[in-house]
Amino acid sequence: MNAAVALPAAVEAARPLLAVLDMAGVAVFAVSGALAAARAKQTIVTFAFFAAVTGIGGGTLRDLLIGAPVFWVGRSDYLAVCLIAAGAVWLLRADRWRLQALLWFDALGMGAYAVIGAAKAQNYGVPPLPAVVMGVLTASFGGIVRDVLAGEPSVLLRREIYVSAAALGAASFVGLSALGLAPLSAGIIGAAAGFGLRAVAITTGLALPGYRTEK
Amino acid sequence: MNAAVALPAAVEAARPLLAVLDMAGVAVFAVSGALAAARAKQTIVTFAFFAAVTGIGGGTLRDLLIGAPVFWVGRSDYLAVCLIAAGAVWLLRADRWRLQALLWFDALGMGAYAVIGAAKAQNYGVPPLPAVVMGVLTASFGGIVRDVLAGEPSVLLRREIYVSAAALGAASFVGLSALGLAPLSAGIIGAAAGFGLRAVAITTGLALPGYRTEK
Amino acid sequence: MNAAVALPAAVEAARPLLAVLDMAGVAVFAVSGALAAARAKQTIVTFAFFAAVTGIGGGTLRDLLIGAPVFWVGRSDYLAVCLIAAGAVWLLRADRWRLQALLWFDALGMGAYAVIGAAKAQNYGVPPLPAVVMGVLTASFGGIVRDVLAGEPSVLLRREIYVSAAALGAASFVGLSALGLAPLSAGIIGAAAGFGLRAVAITTGLALPGYRTEK
Repeated sequence: MNAAVALPAAVEAARPLLAVLDMAGVAVFAVSGALAAARAKQTIVTFAFFAAVTGIGGGTLRDLLIGAPVFWVGRSDYLAVCLIAAGAVWLLRADRWRLQALLWFDALGMGAYAVIGAAKAQNYGVPPLPAVVMGVLTASFGGIVRDVLAGEPSVLLRREIYVSAAALGAASFVGLSALGLAPLSAGIIGAAAGFGLRAVAITTGLALPGYRTEK
Repeated sequence: MNAAVALPAAVEAARPLLAVLDMAGVAVFAVSGALAAARAKQTIVTFAFFAAVTGIGGGTLRDLLIGAPVFWVGRSDYLAVCLIAAGAVWLLRADRWRLQALLWFDALGMGAYAVIGAAKAQNYGVPPLPAVVMGVLTASFGGIVRDVLAGEPSVLLRREIYVSAAALGAASFVGLSALGLAPLSAGIIGAAAGFGLRAVAITTGLALPGYRTEK
Repeated sequence: MNAAVALPAAVEAARPLLAVLDMAGVAVFAVSGALAAARAKQTIVTFAFFAAVTGIGGGTLRDLLIGAPVFWVGRSDYLAVCLIAAGAVWLLRADRWRLQALLWFDALGMGAYAVIGAAKAQNYGVPPLPAVVMGVLTASFGGIVRDVLAGEPSVLLRREIYVSAAALGAASFVGLSALGLAPLSAGIIGAAAGFGLRAVAITTGLALPGYRTEK
């Protein structure tokens, strides 16, 4: 969020909540990065690297593209959250837990990030279509880099509905804002739409059809 | 191109043509990205992602490196062209066509982009050697990322003449400009040189020799 | 280093030495990139690309993240060093030499870069924890991209102590500076600490333990 932009009172009131959600989103993504390192039987250093790339990679690309100062560079808390997530997964052997819960937290984080990414881009004057793309990148780029580095098939190459859910969330937010809806309402609806589609995919296995040359 | 830089009348006259060529270059590269997604039997979302990465990835890296605003972020048309390219490849089942034509369009796009990338860098005050590198990156980086994401052997790891052709085109443009040739003439000669070398490679299979420890 | 920042006389006196070390570090990393191309029996163009990515990739990411002009874009010497390194490895068939020496030069470059990267970040106002991360990225990111492009297992996925040594060096420098030690002393101690840990790893095979679910 761009502090220089005057926001309506309702959004101001939601700021502390947004800050908590933002940090929680980084933590959830960082845990998913550390779990990828655990699957690969990696060292604690790789745990930390994967946690950071996954936790803050998407927002980093967004900030570079829209010309904003990269959000985690001027402060220590985002990196600290990533390091704590990596250490916790290592020490608690979190990969042995049943991680259905994580899947749901990740879905929440994805929904929130798609909206946060699009909103920050719009605050920097980015028009609707690229703003939606910024929301999608914020929500999915960290995980893509994690998968490329770990040598796992990336979410991009799976048919699972993930990037599409982020796109739905970001597009709903941008579209409803353009129609005049208040940012907070548009954001909640957008995040809920993205989360909802992802929830359907998790529970029903709904997936996109792959391209077929013969039908 | 940097609008703040006064350009000679001949270049001004060529602007509409350049704009068309620029958008055509994005479209050709985007189609090649979508075709990689088709080869991998991917979903429409991956088609769109690959089309965008390949279509605008090279120019994005160039703009980040030279400190320019990233060219597609402030407007919607470049992304729209990439999405249309992805949709068209999917709907028209373009991977079943004989795509010799695409190879030639790609060669044209590469020649034009090598010159456009180097020219933009020089407009931002970049000296000759890094400006040539910016031309090469503009013409080839999108395809490299596409190949890494798709898990295909990248053009970097093939002996095919591609990056070299981009380097010849960018270096010819920068060298001729330094010798005092008008930008438009230097650009046409540079693009023709890059395209020409690539054309020889396409028609004759000309390739660079690999490194050998025993000769 | 940021020329706009007034530095103590001792640091000023060390400038020519630092400039030589800096260029030597780029050369060593560039050689390691060219050697990866040689192992893969690549062409001279790929030699040059790998040399440049490895030689200047880490500092490039650092500069983008901290909002500094990318260090090699406004001048020609860094790229020239990379091209010369690539040409020298090709012509001298350097991959047939016994390269124990290179391993040691690389360790020296890593130690120096971890400190240089952290120092530049602090000159740009970056707080301690992200400054340490910038040191680590400067020292290791080029090699990571080289490995991903070459399809080799990246240093990230090996248990070898490398990234940890860079972290130790950068953290020692940042910590000692915070305790009031003069930059030059803190830098020498930091680089020595990073180099020393790496030296132990090279000579004894010391490695980090991988994550194990059963102990």
